[in-house]
Order: sequence, then C-alpha cells, then structure tokens
Amino acid sequence: MSQTDMEVFQELESEVRSYCRSFPAVFTKAKGYKVWDIEGNEYIDFFSGAGALNYGHNDEEMKQALVDYILNDGITHSLDMATDAKGTFLRKFHEVILQPRALNYKVMFPGPTGTNTVESALKLARKVTGRTDIMSFTNGFHGMTIGSLSVTGNLAKRKGAGIPLTNVVTMPYDDYVSEVDTLDYVERFLCDRGSGMELPAAAIVETVQGEGGINVARTEWLQRLASICKEHEILLIIDDVQAGVGRTGTFFSFEEAKIVPDIVCLSKSIGGYGLPLALTLIRPDLDVWSPGEHNGTFRGNNHAFVTATAALTYWENEEFMSTVKEKATHIENFLKKLVVHYPTIEGEVRGRGFMVGIRSNVAGLSSRVAAAAFKRGLIMETSGAEDEVFKLFPPLTIDEEGLEKGLALLEESVQEVTKEKEMIVN
Amino acid sequence: MSQTDMEVFQELESEVRSYCRSFPAVFTKAKGYKVWDIEGNEYIDFFSGAGALNYGHNDEEMKQALVDYILNDGITHSLDMATDAKGTFLRKFHEVILQPRALNYKVMFPGPTGTNTVESALKLARKVTGRTDIMSFTNGFHGMTIGSLSVTGNLAKRKGAGIPLTNVVTMPYDDYVSEVDTLDYVERFLCDRGSGMELPAAAIVETVQGEGGINVARTEWLQRLASICKEHEILLIIDDVQAGVGRTGTFFSFEEAKIVPDIVCLSKSIGGYGLPLALTLIRPDLDVWSPGEHNGTFRGNNHAFVTATAALTYWENEEFMSTVKEKATHIENFLKKLVVHYPTIEGEVRGRGFMVGIRSNVAGLSSRVAAAAFKRGLIMETSGAEDEVFKLFPPLTIDEEGLEKGLALLEESVQEVTKEKEMIVN
Amino acid sequence: MSQTDMEVFQELESEVRSYCRSFPAVFTKAKGYKVWDIEGNEYIDFFSGAGALNYGHNDEEMKQALVDYILNDGITHSLDMATDAKGTFLRKFHEVILQPRALNYKVMFPGPTGTNTVESALKLARKVTGRTDIMSFTNGFHGMTIGSLSVTGNLAKRKGAGIPLTNVVTMPYDDYVSEVDTLDYVERFLCDRGSGMELPAAAIVETVQGEGGINVARTEWLQRLASICKEHEILLIIDDVQAGVGRTGTFFSFEEAKIVPDIVCLSKSIGGYGLPLALTLIRPDLDVWSPGEHNGTFRGNNHAFVTATAALTYWENEEFMSTVKEKATHIENFLKKLVVHYPTIEGEVRGRGFMVGIRSNVAGLSSRVAAAAFKRGLIMETSGAEDEVFKLFPPLTIDEEGLEKGLALLEESVQEVTKEKEMIVN
Amino acid sequence: MSQTDMEVFQELESEVRSYCRSFPAVFTKAKGYKVWDIEGNEYIDFFSGAGALNYGHNDEEMKQALVDYILNDGITHSLDMATDAKGTFLRKFHEVILQPRALNYKVMFPGPTGTNTVESALKLARKVTGRTDIMSFTNGFHGMTIGSLSVTGNLAKRKGAGIPLTNVVTMPYDDYVSEVDTLDYVERFLCDRGSGMELPAAAIVETVQGEGGINVARTEWLQRLASICKEHEILLIIDDVQAGVGRTGTFFSFEEAKIVPDIVCLSKSIGGYGLPLALTLIRPDLDVWSPGEHNGTFRGNNHAFVTATAALTYWENEEFMSTVKEKATHIENFLKKLVVHYPTIEGEVRGRGFMVGIRSNVAGLSSRVAAAAFKRGLIMETSGAEDEVFKLFPPLTIDEEGLEKGLALLEESVQEVTKEKEMIVN
Repeated sequence: MSQTDMEVFQELESEVRSYCRSFPAVFTKAKGYKVWDIEGNEYIDFFSGAGALNYGHNDEEMKQALVDYILNDGITHSLDMATDAKGTFLRKFHEVILQPRALNYKVMFPGPTGTNTVESALKLARKVTGRTDIMSFTNGFHGMTIGSLSVTGNLAKRKGAGIPLTNVVTMPYDDYVSEVDTLDYVERFLCDRGSGMELPAAAIVETVQGEGGINVARTEWLQRLASICKEHEILLIIDDVQAGVGRTGTFFSFEEAKIVPDIVCLSKSIGGYGLPLALTLIRPDLDVWSPGEHNGTFRGNNHAFVTATAALTYWENEEFMSTVKEKATHIENFLKKLVVHYPTIEGEVRGRGFMVGIRSNVAGLSSRVAAAAFKRGLIMETSGAEDEVFKLFPPLTIDEEGLEKGLALLEESVQEVTKEKEMIVN
Repeated sequence: MSQTDMEVFQELESEVRSYCRSFPAVFTKAKGYKVWDIEGNEYIDFFSGAGALNYGHNDEEMKQALVDYILNDGITHSLDMATDAKGTFLRKFHEVILQPRALNYKVMFPGPTGTNTVESALKLARKVTGRTDIMSFTNGFHGMTIGSLSVTGNLAKRKGAGIPLTNVVTMPYDDYVSEVDTLDYVERFLCDRGSGMELPAAAIVETVQGEGGINVARTEWLQRLASICKEHEILLIIDDVQAGVGRTGTFFSFEEAKIVPDIVCLSKSIGGYGLPLALTLIRPDLDVWSPGEHNGTFRGNNHAFVTATAALTYWENEEFMSTVKEKATHIENFLKKLVVHYPTIEGEVRGRGFMVGIRSNVAGLSSRVAAAAFKRGLIMETSGAEDEVFKLFPPLTIDEEGLEKGLALLEESVQEVTKEKEMIVN
Repeated sequence: MSQTDMEVFQELESEVRSYCRSFPAVFTKAKGYKVWDIEGNEYIDFFSGAGALNYGHNDEEMKQALVDYILNDGITHSLDMATDAKGTFLRKFHEVILQPRALNYKVMFPGPTGTNTVESALKLARKVTGRTDIMSFTNGFHGMTIGSLSVTGNLAKRKGAGIPLTNVVTMPYDDYVSEVDTLDYVERFLCDRGSGMELPAAAIVETVQGEGGINVARTEWLQRLASICKEHEILLIIDDVQAGVGRTGTFFSFEEAKIVPDIVCLSKSIGGYGLPLALTLIRPDLDVWSPGEHNGTFRGNNHAFVTATAALTYWENEEFMSTVKEKATHIENFLKKLVVHYPTIEGEVRGRGFMVGIRSNVAGLSSRVAAAAFKRGLIMETSGAEDEVFKLFPPLTIDEEGLEKGLALLEESVQEVTKEKEMIVN
Repeated sequence: MSQTDMEVFQELESEVRSYCRSFPAVFTKAKGYKVWDIEGNEYIDFFSGAGALNYGHNDEEMKQALVDYILNDGITHSLDMATDAKGTFLRKFHEVILQPRALNYKVMFPGPTGTNTVESALKLARKVTGRTDIMSFTNGFHGMTIGSLSVTGNLAKRKGAGIPLTNVVTMPYDDYVSEVDTLDYVERFLCDRGSGMELPAAAIVETVQGEGGINVARTEWLQRLASICKEHEILLIIDDVQAGVGRTGTFFSFEEAKIVPDIVCLSKSIGGYGLPLALTLIRPDLDVWSPGEHNGTFRGNNHAFVTATAALTYWENEEFMSTVKEKATHIENFLKKLVVHYPTIEGEVRGRGFMVGIRSNVAGLSSRVAAAAFKRGLIMETSGAEDEVFKLFPPLTIDEEGLEKGLALLEESVQEVTKEKEMIVN
C-alpha cells in the first residue's frame, strides 16, 4: 500500500520533487523527534525540516494553543492587518528575545518564507543606500526566488534561473582559500578604486552555512566583517533563517560573536510548529519603507503567530539553551571519535551547536551514509554543493534516549558504508 | 484598549505595514463573511484576504478536518517528502478539478505563496525554451520577489526593487489603448525581425487583473493571445493566483475562454482556509525540472493540504458555482445602477464574477469610498496603480443577507462621498 | 589576379567580413562617384560608404588640405589635447553650422565612430537624469558595442551580444502598426503608473532609419515625440550618424521638423573624406561630464579635423543644398515611375532626400536587384531586417551624368530580376 | 594668441575634455619624439599618444607612403570591402608578424578603436562558448563602451555607465594581495560548485596594465592563467591594445611568457602613424562569426592600412627590438636610481620595456611631477585609479639625445616636487 502511495507522487507531482526520492516513504504522523510512515514504521528525525522544526514535531504546548485558537474561530488570514495574535507575538518577541539581548529592531513580516525575508532585506538595503550591488559569500544559500538566488552560491541552483544573475559580487567565505584571511581580499577589493567592485549596498552572510556544507565562520572573522561593513557603510545582513532560533546554541547565531547586524532574516523555526512564518528585523533608522512597498498575501498567518508566541516560552529562561549546549557537546565528541575510528571516510567534523556534520572527502560517501541511515530508520540529509557533508540536525528538544539511538544508527550506517567501500577497494 | 493595541504595531512593526493603516482595528475572530475586532465590532468582509478567503473565514468543514489532523499529531511540516495529507490532496485535485475539465497537468509545490509559483513558472519557461525574456502585460501583478516583480507593471512596486528589472518586455493588455486590438501590436513586434523584441520564453497574464484595476481581458483577446503564443512557441502562463479558485465564476478563470495554458499559477484560496499554499500546474511534457532545482522550506504545509482537500468538496458538483453566478449577476446589476444613480463619481463597472469594482475617474474618490465603508463596518479595498477602483471581493459563500447588507453599506458610503464632493465643489 | 586577391581575404580575414561578399572585387582607387577595382573596372557608387561619403570619394579641396597638413608634419594624433586643427574645426563648425541654425551645443569628441557617439549620448543622458532606461524605437540602428546594440532593433545583431540587452524599452516607430498613431502607445505607457515602463532617461531616434529599412518619420510625429519628451523630461537624442550631414537634404535631418534635440549624434560624413570622426552635440546645460569620464584613444584624429573643416565649405551658402534637393526630386520621380512600370516587384518608394529606396514585398528580390546592379557596375546595398529594401545612397555631389547612368543601370537590374522572376513563375 | 586659442575649447568643447587640461597648449606640429605648440615651444613626448605613437610622430616612411596613396586617389573609406591596401596589409602582417612567431590567427577588423576590438572579442567568446560571463581583472582597462567598460576596473569610469555593469566577474590581478598567488583564489572559485561564479566564457587580461597603474603580471602568473583557462575551456583574451606593438619589448606583450592567447586585441600603434585602426586576432577554429554579425562604418580605414603596412617594416628583422631593449634597460636603471636618490617620493619602479613608471605612495605627488615636467617641456601622464604612478611612454624610436634630455627633465621635475614637499613639511 505504501508502494501504491508513492506512485501517486510519481504520477501527479512534478519531477522537481526531491526529498521524497531520498526518503521514499509516505509519512503520516510525527511527535517530538519521531516520525511515522503510513506502514507504521518509526523514524528518528535528525533532519528537523532542514531547521524548521527545532522544537521537534507537534509540540504539545503549541498544539494546544493552536487548537484553542482554531476552535475559537480566531482570525486565520489577515494580510498585514492588525490582529490580536500578531500583536501578542510582537510584544512577546520584543520582551523575551530582543530586550534581554539589548537589540533594537523593527519587525517586518515580509511573507511567510525564508526567501521572502531575504528579498525584503535586499530591497531595503538597496533603498537605504541607493546602491545596487550586494556582497554575497561563496557557498551561501539564501533562497530560490531571483533576488535570493542571485546571492546564493550553488551553481546548479543558479543555473535554474535561466537568466544571468546580476547586481551581486561573491566574496570568499571564511577559510575559503587556505592560509589566507579571506577578508584581506574583501578589504583589498573595497579599498582599491580600480577593483571593479562597486561599493555594495549590503553584505549578506550566514554565520554557519547550512546548505553550503556546514561551514562555520570564526568569531574573529565575523567581527572583522562587521567592522569592515561599518567602516565602508555597507549594511550587514545576517541570514539566520537556518542557523537562528537556537540551532547554534543561542537564539541568534551571531550572539557568540557579539556583533549587531543591521538587518536579520528569520524564518524556518520562528513559527515554532513548522508553520510558514518569516521576519525581517530592521535597525529602526533603516526602516524607511513606504507602506506596502513590499507586500504579500500570507504575511498574516495567524496560526503561525499563535505557535510562534507559544514557542517563545522556551526562551524565557536559560534552561533550554543550557541543555542544548550540553547535548551539542556530546554530539561533537561523538563525531570527533567517529572520524578517528573510521579513517577511511576521510572525515572532518564541522559545525556549531546542533548544526553539525561530517565532511567526507570520499566522493559520494556522504550520500551513501544518509541512505544507509534512512534504511535503519534515521532521517538525515547531506549538504554542500557536491553533497560532500552528512548533516546532523536533530531537534533541539531531543531527549538523551533519542539522541543516543540516532547516533548509534549513524555509526552503524558509517560502518556499513565503509565496509562497502573496503569491498570495492579490495 | 484597542487604541493601545494599535500602538503595539506602531512601536514594534516596520513602516512597511499597510492594510492596518486603511483598516485601523485589531481583529480577533472571523466566521464566514464576518470579522470582529477586539472591541467586539462586527465587520462585513468584502475583501476576502485579497482573494485568499474565497470560502469565507474559518469554514466549518475545513476547520473540523484541520483540528482532527492536528489533534491526531498529523505531520505538520514535511518539505517535499511524501505525506498522506499531500497524496490525498493530489488525488482529489486530480479527480475533482483536473479530470472533469480534461486538463492534464503535473502539480508542483513551489513554496507556499503566489510569488513562489510565479517564480517557478518563469524559471521553468526559461529552462524549457532556453530563452531569457518574458512577455508581461501592463498593469499585471505577479508578486514582490525580484523575478515576479520584474513582470509586474506597477511602477511604485518596481521601484522598490532598487535595481533595474530586466529580461522582460511589457506589452499592452486588452483595451489598453482605445479602439485598437492591442494584440495587433504584440504580433507586429513578434513578427518583425527588427522590433528589438527577442522571442520571449513565455507570456504571463491574468485573465482579470485584480491588483491592476479589475481589468478584464475579453474572451476573444485571450483566445487570440493563446493562438499567437502557440504559433510562436511562446509558453502561455496564466497567473490565476487571484482570479482562480472560483473568483470569476469558474474554478479556473480561463475556463470561459476555453484556452489551455501551458503553465498555471495558483495560490491564495487554493488552501481553502487562508493557510499558505501554492501550486504550479505544468503541461506534462514541459516538466523538465531536475529534482530540487527549485525548492523551499514550506513546500509541505500539511495543514494547508488538509484544508485544501476539504475545500475541493465545494467543486464536486455544479451547485456551488451556480449560486455564485446568480449572486454575481446580482452584484453586477447593483453596481450598474449605482454608477447611474451617482453620476458625479464618473464610475465605470469593471470585472467578472465575484471580482468586480467601480472605476471612478474622480481622483481620490475610490479611496474615500473605501474609507467611508470601513467606518460603517464594511471592509473593502481599492485597486489600480492610482487606487482608481473600489473593489468588491465578497466571499463566494456569502449569503443573501450578508450581500445585501454589504451592498447597502457600500451605497451609503458612495452617497456620503458624493455629498462631500458636492460640498467641496459648492 | 583579382581572383587571387580575393583569396587573401578568404585565407586571412575573419568570417565576419560582409560587404566584400556582396561586392566581390578588390577596389583600389576612387574619385567622386566613381570607384575602380584592381582590374580597372569602373563602378558607379550609389552606396557612399553607407553614408560616410556624402561628398563622394577623395574630394579635391579636402585632399589638398589633407596632403598639405601631412607634408607640413601637422600633428596627427592628439587624444583630446588642444590642437590647431581641432580648434579651427570647432570654430568653423560653430560659425557655419550651429550659429546660422540658431543651435547652441557643446561639442564632444567621443571617439571616432558612430557607436562611440551613441554610447556617449546614452551615458550622459543617464548621468543627467539619474535614470537607467532608454526608449529606443523599432528598427532603429545605433551601433554594435553593447550600449548602442541595446538600443538597436535588429534581432540578428542583438543576438550577437551573447547576453541579454537590458535597460532599454523599444517603442513603435512611426507607422509601425497601421492606422494607429504609434505615439498614442508611447504616451499611454508613459502616463500610466502601471505600465511597467519606468520613466526613461532619453529617447533615441533616427528621423529616417537607414539600416532599418529607409523608414521615414513624419514631421508631425517627430514634433509630437519632441513634445512628449519635453513634457516628461525625457532627453531627446537624435542619432544623425547616417541621416545627417546633408543626406536628407539639410545639414541636420531634423531641420525640416523644426525640433531641437537635447543631444545629437554625428559621425560618418562629418569627417568629409571618409576618415573616422564623430561628434556628440550637447545642450550646454546638460554638459555635466567630469573631465575624462568618457574617453578614447582616437578622439583626436587631426587628419579628419582637417578634412572636416574643408568639407564645411559646402555649407557656407545655400547652393549645395539647393542642387541636392533638385537631384533628390529627380530620383524620387524616377523611383515612383519604376514601381509603376514594374508592378511585379510590389515596390513602395521610401525615404527622403538622398536617402531613398524601394521596399519590395517579394522575398529576396531586393538582394537580387543589388546583385544584378553590381554585375553592371553599380554599387548599392539593401536595407531592413530582412533586406527587403534596395537602397540608393549616391554621393550628394554626384553630377547629372553619373546620376542618370546609375539610375539607368538600376532600371536594367530591376528589369533583369523581374524577368527572372517571371521565368520562375512560368 | 595661444591664450585665445585655449578659449576656443573652453567655449565650444564639452567639459569632458581632459588631456588639454593637463597639457594646456595648442599643439600644431610633431616629428619623432618632438611636438610643437602654436607659440613655437618644443616638447619632448614621453606620452606617445598613450601608446598609439610607438613609432613617434609622422614617421617619414609612413608619411611618404600615405601621401603617395592619397595623391593617387587610393580609395579612402571602404567599410569591409576588399581593397588593395587592406590585402597588402593582411599579407604583410601575416608574413612579418604571425608566421615568424608561429601564430595562426584570422584577422578581424572590428572598427578602428580599442574598444571596438574588445567588444568584438567579448561577443565572439560568448558566441563560441554559449556562456555569458567574462572574467576580468582588477585594474584592467579595456575601453569606454558598455561592453568594454563592464570589464574595466576603474570605479570612476564604471560609474559613468549610469547602469549596473553586469555579466562580469572581477578576479585579482597578479600581486593584488600581498604574499598570495592570486590564481589560487581564481582556481578555488572555478573548481568549487558553490562559488557563485558561473564558468566564464573568457578571461580578458593585459600582461601589463597601462591605465591601471603599470602593473606587470609575472611570466609564471600568465602561464598559470593560460593553463587554468585551457583546463576549464575558458577562452584567453589578451588585450594588447596598449602593451602590444613593441611597447614591452616584443611585438606582442605575451611573447616573453610564451603563451598563445585564443583572441588578441590590437589597436593604438598598429596603424603606425596614429591613425585609427584595430584588429581582433582569432584562433581560426573560433572564427564562427556570421557575416556582418559585428560591423561598423570605419572598419576600412585605408589610410591606416597604408601606414600600418609601412610600419611593419620595423619588424622585418631583430634590429628594432634590440635597440628598444637596450634603451629600456637604460630607462629602468635611471628610474631605479631616481627612487633611491629621492626617497621622499616613496617610489617604486614598475613596468616592462618602454611601459614603465614610478609609483609614489605620496598622495598627489605623481600628478605634481607630471605637471612640473610639462612646464619644462616634457609631456608625460599619470596612471592608476588614484593617479599614483607617473608613467614614461617615450616613442620606441626615440634617440639617445632625446631620451637623455627627457630623463633629465624628469629628474628636475622630481627634484622640484620633492623640494616643494620639503618646504611644506618644514
């Protein structure tokens, strides 16, 4: 019957479908770190909706709040009208997230997805500065609409545009060229009046590149980048769509580096329950939008406001983050041992917090690990322009049992793949 | 207290907010064609979430299906993995919508908003044809991300891009220049090897332009456009985001013209309940996407699959549309009388089905009518590049009582505004 | 031996060579309207270097001045330094051309070719207005570098760019769509805030389109265009590279329409002797260039200054133009009779002054006429995106004998081709 | 009277004029390395028309050939028709230049200026590869039309475009960032599928950057670049407009590095006498142009063919280059001493062959040196995005006396400026 059901997608859905090819099962239910398919098989989720389910699936508190709201006929769709659900979210976000971190941002609802917030950030940066170009970074990933795609590094995705992607200059991310501080390049280009690089409106950067291969920018690099931006009056946009909302161990991924971006892009887990929501946080003096200059039908997804508000409860004290950090340390140690024990995978541990993975220099190995894991009931994906990394993205809320079980399945998968490899070699 | 609450938005939300300025109230609940604010005031909704709430607010059947799904821990967020909720939707959409209309399309989930489906359509058209340019039409509206914005006519919105919007050629929509068939012009450009107009990959068009001033393309114009596209091997993309899902009196707005687009963009009311969802319908032989070539985090919004599936029930027989048509005729007659009775508004009735309005040649009048209506408890908006049209978008499910009440409030509002006007003149 | 010589070009020159394919002879000498090839064959020149030889070949006065200058070691190449030869030209151009026509322009030397002046005009218009787009016209031809090519209508030439040509909007030239004043379209697009057409920096237009098919804009059309430009503060650039310097019967082609462009592009015959030279004439208050903001190595081609100065002598009184007009009337009458006598060519007389031709609706006929003419010793070319026009461009200085002889050869050629045609038909 | 004459230019010529501001004199005659102004003052020319007068002014042999041609009514202007003068040039260029160097190129006449050859090279590279982007290098200078400007590094010049310059990616030239081989960076971008850098159609590079600050690419760097291009099937375009025709000590500037470009751009001194001429040399299998796909009015400047042919005589044996090399060594030694003797200029000797200069780290100093030199009768200019280099470009044909005199004037000028500087400091 599952077989039949996968046929529905083959028959009726476009060839563009992708994850259903890596994870060939029809999913039905989910709770916390567990997912079930239509045949009743249980999976451990080390994928978390690519960062959209940091709190796991169907969190009880959020679920209750959402069901109550729906049953009470709370307004569902409101464009950018004022609603109680939205006002409550705004106030709580201000109190629980911004104020304690001494951050002062206006909140924009740019449409409910990551690419909407990125597009709005780029537009605003161009409007504020009157400049056209954006500085992006190698292996950055910011979305699939033309504006966001233009600042995305992945060439296969870029080719999908079908048109030249312009008004962007791509600079090397941290550690891109070995034994060089890549910001030396950036500064040289910026300071030289013959570099061909017009002063950009903004730099858009992820502190950890989730899609681009779990590349981590060092704190000093981020700080120097922030300072270069400030010096040249380039706006600094942190795209925290994937790395934000706790994924790296703090609410914003840039807290550790103690930098204050001019614009912050949030989406994915900000809605808490996996419902579409995105925010663009704007330094108040840059909030020069005309009313409606950027708009969209689903800016007022009240269900997501309700769950997003409930999700903020996790951040009312330090406890949540402290358990996340403990678990992150555990995962890191596990991965470090793994690369030592399995030298044939030529692995390198990457990442920060709950945004980690192993880069294997063996071509195709990471994909085989992820496939072997799925067979064992562990959902995880690969990352990087050549899928060179297998990526661990457990929910931040996973308990010890789930984590251990998942890591054990991962090790088994690595073991299987290395054996295969040896067989091939021998 | 409402006053206080509006302040939340002034303090914390970006200046880009817009509808909350035209409709200054904090909304809380909604049912069918009614909406309530935090002070308990009731409003009649002639706006319908700009076409995202064609079935009215919080429809009981959809609500029940949604709550059941949530309570049962149905998977909420699934990217483009296979889920039961998605498979069920796909099958029902095929059976209830496509098959009876002899339409054969592959369904793509391009991300949950209108601009996502438009961006995906443009990408695909460029990939299929290997051409870069898109033919758009004056006063078309397709979305706010750079790709969609490039084919949007509104200059104020275009300026928001901050960069030249390229790879597009804008042609005159039906009736754009008086006493001319504008397709003569289009054909001349296409046939002349010296026209400077490269052969476009696709033409993207709305059959009725909702944002651009409730402009209706005649059936013959649409048919000729389709035939020109066919002759020149230009793909025909119908953007049915606003005009689709029954708004013009049939599920697809192009049914009356009996044309078969190569690609169809759907969003807004396709989710039924106002939840973010979008589809791109693709002629099967054009479905040449590579897996994941276009992607997005919220492609698998299962709550919306559940309500979208429930919403399709309305289309299982002819009844729904036949009552819609009756009501549409009633509205049309009412508006025709209105422009006769109030000649000072210099009004012209526009639109088709439940997508109608009055264009007033008196500068600013339409905005004043909408404002006067809101004061009376009627929510309606304006349309057109200079807000020259006041636009009636009641839910298709509105009952006679609601409709009469709304129309009465509208007439009162027109009356008030014309009096003001006379006072000013005198 | 001539045969051998054509082989040199086949062996050593790029495939891009073109006229040497239509006129397969090795030319050596030229005088007035006559040209000789290496075998001593004499040709009548109804081509005039595509408008660069309006005074015929190797005019005696200019030749003398040039040889004297060279023998005296006058400075040849001077970039944009001040030289006596240049100063003399500037003064004489001012006195003989600008002052008598009450025109007030600053003169820029943008590099020695037509495309240089066009590129400089577009740059300046963008700088002055701060806008990016240029309004071009169907079948306009302005040059082959990317800026000029972007405003050129010919699709085969545009394709040569290899990149999308952007920041331009092409509007219909006069008479482009039958029974419509095409400026109605232009105005509609300009006045409608939803037209998708950003306010352009400038409109660039030829009063007679030489490459685009000898299309003549009517005086009223040019006047209305000038008035539309003025109203919308769009700069009006007249590209008089081909139509200027007497070709249409006045020095500037726009004199008849009594319009005053903001910027004028001149090249081709401005040097008099066929030497590379171009001018950009700029309304003084628009002359906001920074020094060197546009430059080029061959801006100071002093040989061309010398011959250009000598050429201005033709314009010191009315005589030259009055004989040109007489001859032009004669040519026009001849062509009108020709289309009547040879109805099978389905011909239509086009053009103005010495810039005339016959458009034939018979596919391929115009090329056959030009080929038949060349066989008879008459050099003439075709025009239009599909070579649908055979084009008469005699030197303005041609005498009666030469003209009659040329016209007679043309008639013979038409006769031959129509006979062929009949033979094919029968 | 000279005063009066400079007024002509102020009154009648555009503000864009530039060199006449640095060299405020009205020049009349020139011979070899000497130039005279209208008041009879004599100047030594260390500027050579920015590289267009490598053989000095009004070379006797060329002059004779030119005057003979003119007196004989040789055809002057011929577009791209076959002429005897052109055929003779083609054959001699093949025999004297290409064959002895074992180079096999088709010759294209792209229009008579440097920017024409660059535009044609970019077009062809895009056509051959079907790709849109070009790899340019920091501080490259390739011309002022939009295509050439897009690959030019100078930001002030780029800004002149008034539109975003797209379809180009600028990479670091040799030695751009200290202690790094900048080609490591280039290779990293090319090999990484996530670099955001689409595979370019071509790399365009100068072996010595004349306008960009007399930056010399090392032989190994050029060789590695050539090998990277070959590996990635990127066409290598050497822009030899300024560095070619003997300027660096060999006919082509890339001979020393023993690389064979796919396309070579030549102009400036190729005409010999300072007359406008340009060539694009094309690897035969890349010569896929359609006839006329790129064209231009002044492709057939026969006067320049005549002088260009005469100029090739210099290259019939080794003598010319051997004297050039001797003199170049002398200049280099002189400059090296100069920077030692005048440490306050903080000078660094740059360049190769007769393409040399001193970069001074003292802001404004180089311009003051050039101004002081002009006062003394020595014409020389500055180079670099901030005019940080004073540049020596004597004619290759300069004799010992002229060279010594010029160098002496230069030293005096440096002396004067350093004294001023000391006075300011004290």
